[in-house]
Parts: sequence; C-alpha cells; structure tokens
Amino acid sequence: MINWSNMDTLASFRELSKADKVDLAAVMAGESGAERVKKYSVPMAKGLVYHYGAKQVDDKILDGLVKLAEEAQLADKFQALYNGEVINTGEKRLVLHHMTRGQLGDPVVADGVDKRAFYTGVQQKVAEFAEKVHAGEITNGAGEKFTTVVQIGIGGSDLGPRAIYIALENWARKHNTLKMEAKFISNVDPDDAAAVLNSIDVAHSLFILVSKSGTTLETLTNESFVKDALKNAGLDASRHMVAVTSETSPLAGSDDYLAAFFMDDYIGGRYSSSSAVGGAVLSLAFGPEVFARFLEGAAEEDRLSAGRDVRKNPAMLDALIGVYERNVLDYPSTAVLPYSQALSRFPAHLQQLDMESNGKSVNRFGDPVDYQTGPVIFGEPGTNGQHSFYQLLHQGTAIVPLQFIGFKNSQIGTDVVIEGSTSQQKLCANVAAQIVAFACGKEDENRNKHFEGGRPSSIIIGDQLTPETVGALLSHFENKVMFQGFVWNVNSFDQEGVQLGKVLAKRVLAHETDGALKEFSDLLNI
Amino acid sequence: MINWSNMDTLASFRELSKADKVDLAAVMAGESGAERVKKYSVPMAKGLVYHYGAKQVDDKILDGLVKLAEEAQLADKFQALYNGEVINTGEKRLVLHHMTRGQLGDPVVADGVDKRAFYTGVQQKVAEFAEKVHAGEITNGAGEKFTTVVQIGIGGSDLGPRAIYIALENWARKHNTLKMEAKFISNVDPDDAAAVLNSIDVAHSLFILVSKSGTTLETLTNESFVKDALKNAGLDASRHMVAVTSETSPLAGSDDYLAAFFMDDYIGGRYSSSSAVGGAVLSLAFGPEVFARFLEGAAEEDRLSAGRDVRKNPAMLDALIGVYERNVLDYPSTAVLPYSQALSRFPAHLQQLDMESNGKSVNRFGDPVDYQTGPVIFGEPGTNGQHSFYQLLHQGTAIVPLQFIGFKNSQIGTDVVIEGSTSQQKLCANVAAQIVAFACGKEDENRNKHFEGGRPSSIIIGDQLTPETVGALLSHFENKVMFQGFVWNVNSFDQEGVQLGKVLAKRVLAHETDGALKEFSDLLNI
Repeated sequence: MINWSNMDTLASFRELSKADKVDLAAVMAGESGAERVKKYSVPMAKGLVYHYGAKQVDDKILDGLVKLAEEAQLADKFQALYNGEVINTGEKRLVLHHMTRGQLGDPVVADGVDKRAFYTGVQQKVAEFAEKVHAGEITNGAGEKFTTVVQIGIGGSDLGPRAIYIALENWARKHNTLKMEAKFISNVDPDDAAAVLNSIDVAHSLFILVSKSGTTLETLTNESFVKDALKNAGLDASRHMVAVTSETSPLAGSDDYLAAFFMDDYIGGRYSSSSAVGGAVLSLAFGPEVFARFLEGAAEEDRLSAGRDVRKNPAMLDALIGVYERNVLDYPSTAVLPYSQALSRFPAHLQQLDMESNGKSVNRFGDPVDYQTGPVIFGEPGTNGQHSFYQLLHQGTAIVPLQFIGFKNSQIGTDVVIEGSTSQQKLCANVAAQIVAFACGKEDENRNKHFEGGRPSSIIIGDQLTPETVGALLSHFENKVMFQGFVWNVNSFDQEGVQLGKVLAKRVLAHETDGALKEFSDLLNI
Repeated sequence: MINWSNMDTLASFRELSKADKVDLAAVMAGESGAERVKKYSVPMAKGLVYHYGAKQVDDKILDGLVKLAEEAQLADKFQALYNGEVINTGEKRLVLHHMTRGQLGDPVVADGVDKRAFYTGVQQKVAEFAEKVHAGEITNGAGEKFTTVVQIGIGGSDLGPRAIYIALENWARKHNTLKMEAKFISNVDPDDAAAVLNSIDVAHSLFILVSKSGTTLETLTNESFVKDALKNAGLDASRHMVAVTSETSPLAGSDDYLAAFFMDDYIGGRYSSSSAVGGAVLSLAFGPEVFARFLEGAAEEDRLSAGRDVRKNPAMLDALIGVYERNVLDYPSTAVLPYSQALSRFPAHLQQLDMESNGKSVNRFGDPVDYQTGPVIFGEPGTNGQHSFYQLLHQGTAIVPLQFIGFKNSQIGTDVVIEGSTSQQKLCANVAAQIVAFACGKEDENRNKHFEGGRPSSIIIGDQLTPETVGALLSHFENKVMFQGFVWNVNSFDQEGVQLGKVLAKRVLAHETDGALKEFSDLLNI
C-alpha cells in the first residue's frame, strides 16, 4: 500500500532536520577526508562511480536519509511507476519512459498494446529507416544521399537530443560512425531557422519534425520556414521530411512526410530522449547501433535505480542528498559542472529536466506544500566555469551545492604534453583540486584570500564519455529527479506552469489585450 | 569626500528595508498596470529602453532607492573610477575599461602614458592589421588570404568576445560584412582544441592568443595544440598567430607572433570585451568599422550611466532594484532571458561578469560583510526557456527575478506568416505575455493550474540587435554590476576566489598531495 504523503508529515524528515550538521571542512581534512572518499562511493552503470565523500553527510545523516527513503517508499513508488500505475495524476497518464530502454517489471498494456513491444517496434522502424538513408536507398529527389539531418523541435524535443548529439559528435567522428551531421532548429525567433537554413545544403538535408501533439507553435512555424526553403530551392518538401509525433496527431497520417515515427502520451517531453524523439535524430546521425548502445547504458542504470538498498542506488542517494541540501541546509540552487567540453549542453538539458519536473508549489493532489521544492539548476563545463562564476561559488555569501562529472580519458585522444602533463591530466587535476578547495577551503589572514570551505560537491567519474556512459548519465539524472519528486510528493510529470504564457501570447497575437499586456504589446510593435 | 561604507550602515538602506512591500500582482492588474508600464521606463543608448513597470517597486520604494544611491555616493564613486582612482583596492589598480570606448572625465595618465591615447592607439593598430588581412596584404606562407580567425582564450578572453560574435554573426552576414568566420578554443579539455582544429582549414586560419599575463595554463596549453597542428600541416606557426597580451608579458616581444596588441592591468578579464581582447577577433571577423560602432554604443550608454539623476540612469536604477530584490526581498538568483537566438551566449557572459565581480563575502577593506552580495545568474534565450525551466519560474516555491531583452525586428529579415502573424511577432507576443503572466498570475480553483503571480521582471526593448545595441547592452550590464558592487561595498574588480583551485591543481600535477586530494587524484588516474 503506497502512501502519497507530504514530506513534512514524515517522522523521518523531522528527525533528519534535527540531526547534527556535518562540518564539511573539518571532516574532509587530512586522513579523515581520505577515508571519506574511499567509503562514500557507489558504482553506477558502465564503469561510472558516484562519489559523495565531499557532500555534507556522515553515517548518521545517511542513516536518516535511508529512513526517509523507506518512509517515503521511494522504491515502491518507482516500482508502481514502471509497472504502469497512473503516476502522472495531473494529466492522468502512465509514466513509461524507462520502457523505451528495458522492461523493469511487469508487462504494461495500454491502448490495447504491450508498451515495451510498441517502443521497440518504433526503434526497429527508425533503425530500418536510418539504415536505408545511410545506404542510399532513401534519397532526395535527385537520387542523392542525404548528408545532414535537422531536428525541428523545442524543449524536450530539442535540449536532450541536442545535448546527446554534442556529447557524442566527436566520439562518433573518431570512431568513423558519424553518418550525418545534425543541426537543430528550436526557437520561434525567425533568425534561428534562417541561420540554420543558411548554414546547410538543403538539397541534401533530411528534416525531422518533432511534436507529440502536432500543435506546438514554434515547431509548426519552423516547419513552414523549412518548407519555404525547400520550395524556394525547387525541391519537394515531402521527400525531405519525417515526423516524430503521436498516433493521434494531425501529422500522423499526412502525406507530407517520408515516414512517421510514433511516441505516446506516457513519455513527457523532457523524458523523451530515449524515445523516437532522440532515437530518430541520433540513429540518423550516428547509426542505430550507437543509439542502441546509448539505450543499453540507460537500461543498466535504470536497473540500479530500481534497487531497494539505498546505499547501492546512486540515483536515490543523489536525490536524497539533494533533498537534504534543499530542505534542511536550505541551499536554493545547484550547479552541474561537467569537466568535458562534449557535455557543454548537458547542464541545459538537466536544467529543463529538473526545473520543469520539480518546480512546483502543489503536491500531486493539488494542495500547496509548505516546503521548498526543486532548486534552480545551472552550469557550464569546467575548466571554463573556473574562469567565470566559480568566484561566487568559492567566496560568495551563499552556498551552492555542486555536481561534478569527470572522465579519465578524452574522446578524440589528441593531446599535448606541457610542463610534464597532458591536457587531459590538467583537466582531471583541476576537478580534483576544485572538490577539495570547495570542501576544505584555506585559512588566510588576508580575509580577501580566505576560503571558508564547507561547500559540498559530488562527482561522477567514468573512463570515457561514450554512448553507454551518456545513457547511464541521462538515466541517473532522470531517476534522481523522479525520486526527489516522490519525496516532495509533487507530480514531476506535468507542466501546468507553461500554459498561462501560451494563452496570453495568443491573446496578444489576436490583439485582444488590455492593461499592461496591451502596453507591452504596443511597445513591441505587435 | 567619498565614504566607502558597508550597506547595512546606511540609514537609507535600513529605511528601505522597512518600507511597505509592493503587491505586484495587484498593481499590475488593469489600468494601474497600464499606467505603470507607461511611467516606469527610461531611455538607454541607441534607441533601447529599460522598462521596470513589472518590477516590485512603486514611487515610495523608488524614492528609497534614490536615497540609497545618494547616500552610497554611486555617481561620485563612478566618477572617481573613470577619473583614475585606485578602485580595485585588492590588486591596487585603476579600473579603466570605460576608457576603451570614450573619455568620461579627466585624462588619466598611468605608466607614463595617457590611457585614452593608449587604448585608441591599440585599436588603430588592430584596425590596420585587420584591414591588411582583409585586403590580402597579410597572408599565410603561400600568399593566400586568411578566411578564419580563432580566438584562444578562457574566461573573459572567451565568454564576452564569443557572445558578441554570436550576437552579430547573422547581422554581419546579412550586411555583407562578415569578413572571416570566427571560432573559439577555451577549455583545457583536449577535445575542445582538437574538435575546433578538425573543423577548420588551418592553412587559412589566423589564431589570436589572448592572455594578459602570458601565463594562463589553459591558453598556453591550447597554443601548443595549435602550434602542433600548424607544424603537422607543414606550416610556419609564427605566420599564423597574433597575441593580445600585456606589454610586460613574456609573449609581448616574442618572434612567435605576427603582431602583438596590448592590454594592461587596468582592465579585468570580464570587462575586456571592448579592449583588444574583443577588438582583435571582432575587427578581424566583422571589420574594424563594425567594432567601432559597437564601441560607440557602449560609449553612449556609459555617458548615461555617469548621469547623477538616478531616475534617468538605467544602469543605476537596474542595479538598485537588483539590490532591493537581493537584500530586502531576499531573492537569491536572477535569470537573464533574451528573446533573441543571437543572444544565446550573452547570459553566459553576464554570468561571469556578475558572479565573478560580486560573488564576494568581504568588503573592499577585507572585512566580512553581514549581508548577501551577488546573486546566482543564469539564463537561456526565449522562447526556448519557456519550454524548459519557466515551469519553476512560474510555479516553483522560490521567486526568481527576471531580466528580459527583446527586439522589434529580427536580424536576418527572413520570416513566415502562420495564422496571421510572423515568427518575429510571435516571439514578441511571447515575451509580452510572459511579463504579464509572471506579474499578474491567474486564479484557478484547480491549484495545479493556479498562478500566484507577483514574480518581478524588467525588459530592455530595442529596434534591432546591431553592433551599437550590443555595445549599449554590454555597457549597461557592466555598469549595473559596478554600481551594485559600490552599494555592497565590495571590490568588483578582483577574483581571489579562483586562486586556491589553481594552487591545488598544480600540487596534483606535481603529485604533492595527501588526504582527500590524493584519493581524488588517484580516482582520476592522474
């Protein structure tokens, strides 16, 4: 029997709030610090390890977090989710994105079909299509191969797939598996579509229109942009476009597309990277076998997330520590800092994933909650961030918990030795140094050069950023966000907060405005 | 006589803290909202206007802010700065970045030269060099024109110039003034340099090495990368490289460079976009006359910032409202949301500018302050953000003040009409709608669809994003951050918080570690 209770009604949370806080700078010093690094780590999928020794926790706090996980029934709730309960209560929907990469529990039948079979069927269809494109069996009107694939989508149809493409582009080039270059058009700003179209050879470009509902304003507008460009080039648009949409959308049966790949209502936009939304563009760019490896990494991490031993479940641990930081230590934001240029847009994806899922003020029954929910998420790759906003992270008046990600090896493998070390070693040395600088600080009589320390961080370390490890990372953060939503008792799978702006924008375009809205519309010449 | 006093010692600040708060949702409704939009705006340079009607202020709060500005002597402090006082007390340096674009006050002589003449002299040298490159008078070893310029720099040598390049790339293409494509190498991650080098034709590329000290680890490492690539292509590296550095750096007199353009210690990295740091790459990419137009926009905005009437000084008003939000309303972060895809990296530049300048815990004398200083800054372009993190901004438990930027016209001018409106109109309709949605909210019996409102925002509106308006925007935010630093009584021009990480990273590379640092170094295979 699952109880969906607010966090502040849980005895374990109240107990946790009263537990002694950890003096991070003290415990991370000397031999005690070394012991913590060895002790506080847990394996993830595909050789990744989640290290939380530099977080503001100790055995007592961790015991408290385990109790919180148990009282909040996190494992049971995840099980209910993957077994097909209606977890997205606001929209009365199942939540099945895990099923795009594996079957964690019972078969789930919805809309009269086995959903795992549905998702693998779509993957198969995407794979066959991609292979035909790569083999030159599906071509442009002149019988020539497509060389570029352009994703037209916004939000979850853009950020995740784009972040993953950037994460693997150099890897794929290195491994001779970059089949097509990918581009992305997202913004309704006409300069976005125009600039992308100016930068490609449209005659050899295949466009993927991604909209679950088939009604997303930005995406349909950008589709018109693309169709105009194709028409102006004397090309037949329907030979250059495919759709990723739901079976019930107006796009589904249209002759305007070479093919349509289906998604459904059980996968939210921000959780759709492992569905056809990510699958089509990534399979076309890298080949379906690379996308399959990505899914395999995510599936393995999902299985770890389903484990009931909190201390062996990295996503659950990460989630619980985050809740402790947000609600007991009262830290309002979190920075994601990958020491990998290839992950340059991964923070932007996590920003959507986290803030859109848990930026809520009501619980899953629509009642206001009396505690803070999702934090502000931001981040840039290291070492770039060190020369930018780290000043505030080290010496600002507010503490920002940090999530580092680092890899022992680069993707391309080209490197130089300067002063006895490679660039990759310098990169890794910097992230190690930062963790300790943040945690331990440094006394200095000159207060301007004094570092208080006590700034908590965790790091996920892997051998290399590969399709499998990108998949594992994605799953880790999706599941972390889900577990936090469970603790906060919010619905992490709807986004009612985006509706009001849409309604008002329509009113502006229809010139049905008054008051401040009319004034701003006039100022902007609408 | 200037008093450098902590904010909490000022009577005007204590009074402001006690003033009645504004119920934003109430005052922004109906006719009152329309009146506020008309009343609360102030012209900026080059046709931009700063609108703060949707901020949580009223005449009484604004009176309080004016008193705060006067008691904190903001205009006097800026005057002292541009007249050449040692405002960067930590490093005992003048602060002269304004002088790269104009002379606001007295001539300033330092190091035996008139600094305005020094900066314009460097600009002249850069312009002549760029013109020779464009004219094919300075060529590669084979006598062929350079087609690509690559900036090698990190932090302030990267973020600002990169953001400005992206802001103007499409504009320049449209106006046939894109002379060379620009690329940027910043991260010590070897995959950054390797990927950029793989993407260009090195034989026709000119590299700009940017390092004031000539000792920045990342930049020197990446220089080696580039020199290796040039050597491997059988090219003479010294014919492909220029340096932007200080006259005293080891790079200044080296034969390794075609030319050296000088900067000095009076311009901090994050304030260096209008110096040779931005000037070289932007003049080469767009032509020196475009860079001159950018400087002119910044100069005009600087003159407005120097005004003593707070209500006519947009940067000062923006700064004061930000302080009110940070210290009285207690909002810990701020989002920058340009409705312009071309400004996609402008938030990342402002993130450095703001967080590195004012993320401090000690005042300019090195004494700890008892109030919050710089907020966390983050942002992405709209409408993309609407489909990402806006959920939290609308319905999360914490309030995030917002800074919108919008333009009536696109840069490229290609557009489509769908459902009776252009994409540009849709873009503008969305930002107008968001401002009102955030401020006014919407009642709904279903609490999940309820919007509390009361979420403050301002918007800068312009006709178009051009070299002049980019310059004005840059100056506005630089001066805003400066004024906030004056109110908080911190030194906004040093960055001691970045030092500890550098020291520890060196120790890791020298294998001189123990405790947690040794453990993490081992985990990362260093």
